[in-house]
Formats: sequence, C-alpha cells, structure tokens
Amino acid sequence: MIDIQRIECGPRMSSVVIHNNVAYLSGVVARDFSGDVAAQTRDILQQIDDNLAKAGTGKDRILTAQIWLKDIGRDFAAMNKVWEEWGAEGHMPARATCEAQLAAPDVLIEIIVTAAV
Amino acid sequence: MIDIQRIECGPRMSSVVIHNNVAYLSGVVARDFSGDVAAQTRDILQQIDDNLAKAGTGKDRILTAQIWLKDIGRDFAAMNKVWEEWGAEGHMPARATCEAQLAAPDVLIEIIVTAAV
Amino acid sequence: MIDIQRIECGPRMSSVVIHNNVAYLSGVVARDFSGDVAAQTRDILQQIDDNLAKAGTGKDRILTAQIWLKDIGRDFAAMNKVWEEWGAEGHMPARATCEAQLAAPDVLIEIIVTAAV
Repeated sequence: MIDIQRIECGPRMSSVVIHNNVAYLSGVVARDFSGDVAAQTRDILQQIDDNLAKAGTGKDRILTAQIWLKDIGRDFAAMNKVWEEWGAEGHMPARATCEAQLAAPDVLIEIIVTAAV
Repeated sequence: MIDIQRIECGPRMSSVVIHNNVAYLSGVVARDFSGDVAAQTRDILQQIDDNLAKAGTGKDRILTAQIWLKDIGRDFAAMNKVWEEWGAEGHMPARATCEAQLAAPDVLIEIIVTAAV
Repeated sequence: MIDIQRIECGPRMSSVVIHNNVAYLSGVVARDFSGDVAAQTRDILQQIDDNLAKAGTGKDRILTAQIWLKDIGRDFAAMNKVWEEWGAEGHMPARATCEAQLAAPDVLIEIIVTAAV
C-alpha cells in the first residue's frame, strides 16, 4: 500500500490529501464573502496557490479543476477573466464548471483542484 | 497498460472501479428515501463502508469526497454531524459539498468517494 | 516528478490532461445546443470517443463519469438510454449524476470522464 499524506486534517476534511503522485485539494471558498465573484475568485486562487505549495507543487501542475458558481449566468465571464489571468500558460488543467448553491448564501464560487506532485 | 478491476458492473455503471492503487466509487444514495438527511447519510456511509471493503480498503484510506445535498441550507449541519461521527479521525479526505437536485425528489443526499487501495 | 501531457491546451483549459496512467477530460457539452437531451448526449459521447482516442485509450477504459443535467426530472431516462447503448458492456465506469444549470440556457447536459491510458 502506498502512503497517504494529509495536510491540515480536521474533523471534517483535510485541506490536501497526497497519494501516488497526486494531490487532492478540498473545495476552496473565499475567506471573505463580502466581495463580488472576481474578488472571491482571486482569494480562492491565492489559497489554492498556498495549498499547492504546501504539497510541494504549483499551478503549472494542476490536472483538473471543477468550478461551482452560485449564478453562472451572471458570473461566468468575470470568473473566467480572473481564472485566465492566473493560469499558467500552456499548463491549463481539464476543467468543468456548473451552477450550484453553496454552503452559505454569500458564497459565490467554490473551486476544487487536483494536481500532480 | 495497468489492469482495471470493476465491481458490480451493470449496464449503466460499476459500483467500484479500481486502477493504479485507487478505487473510484459511484455516487451512492440511500436505499430508503423515506428518512431525513441524517438517516439517509448513515445508510449511504454504511454502503460506502461495504463498497470500500469489497475493494480491500476502508474509510481511513479515503482520498476525496464530493457531497451533493438537495437542500444545503436546511441539511448541511445534520449531514456534517453524521459525517464527522463516522469519519476516521486523523484520516479525513479532501471534501467539497454543494446543493444539487438528485435523481428523484426524495433523494436528499448523494456521496461520491475515491480511496487508496 | 512524472511528466504531464496536455492535449489542446487553451487559455482556459485543456481538452485532456494525462498523468500517471490516467487521462482527465474536461467537461464536454454538445457542439449544437438546438437538439434535445438525446441528441446532445450522442454528440458529447462522440466527442469523448474522439478525446479518448487522442489520449490513446477508449471507452472500455473509462474509470469515472460525472453527468450534469439541466433538468434531471425530465431528461434522466432519455440520457440513460443513449448512455447505455454507447457504453462498453462489462467495462462501465463509476458514475454519478445530478441536476445543474450549465454555461448557457440551451446546454442540457455536460459529461466529465477520466480514463485509464
């Protein structure tokens, strides 16, 4: 059996789980829900950068992303603008995006990624 | 090419697919939809325990979980209580939760996990 | 570190990302949104066949599928009929399906798969 490494393992989830050269990140929401979707996306991507760094990897090694938006009709374009500015050119993941209500009404976006380590 | 093992492969899906040291479980819903979210969550987690056992692994080796709730505003706390009582302390997966309507109106929750084998 | 191969890497995502014997496909929607869910599902599955072929694999090696339907109450049965006709008997993936609003109002279905390569 291959070892599993868990980063920030709490009673509900771990921030990152690493196994067999892949890091699985928990879904990330913004730390401050008062901002619009661009602000929340920027904050999420900063947390993802931090979590990837803790796993010894970075955004140029992301394999997959799943993006959940509270209002995809209103916020899809604004999210994509921040996403594309942040992404590592030539190293973009497989991605899928849908609309979903999230854990609190002011949460406009949540992003789940996996990355190679 | 690495072999793939499929458990309970039907015309639509397999209960579990194992490849390269990872077991991928199909989304699990309760066998009885008459219960509340706590009852449905307990039944799902029992089925997940069973499916993990068939794959030769267990809840302390879960890598990721995705949880879909029919009504996240109403049921998030009750689901989390059952989840945390069931989870293997110090071995919690990466997790993400959103609201989603499921295959039938009485289905209050569906959980998808992957685990190391 | 294991190499990552990306197919059709654009500014937002790659069509396929391959790492450690697994191919991760981006969520696929139909190229023509005027059809009903059966037509859209058939078109998506053709694109998935094409993307799997580019990755050197095929539908008999799919590990997981996640299916998002705009209207699960109306379209679940029609989607399943197309899905089951298309699937490789004895080689079905782990699967989960929920309702989700997608990137445009006429998008009735999106499918995300991963496959062994």
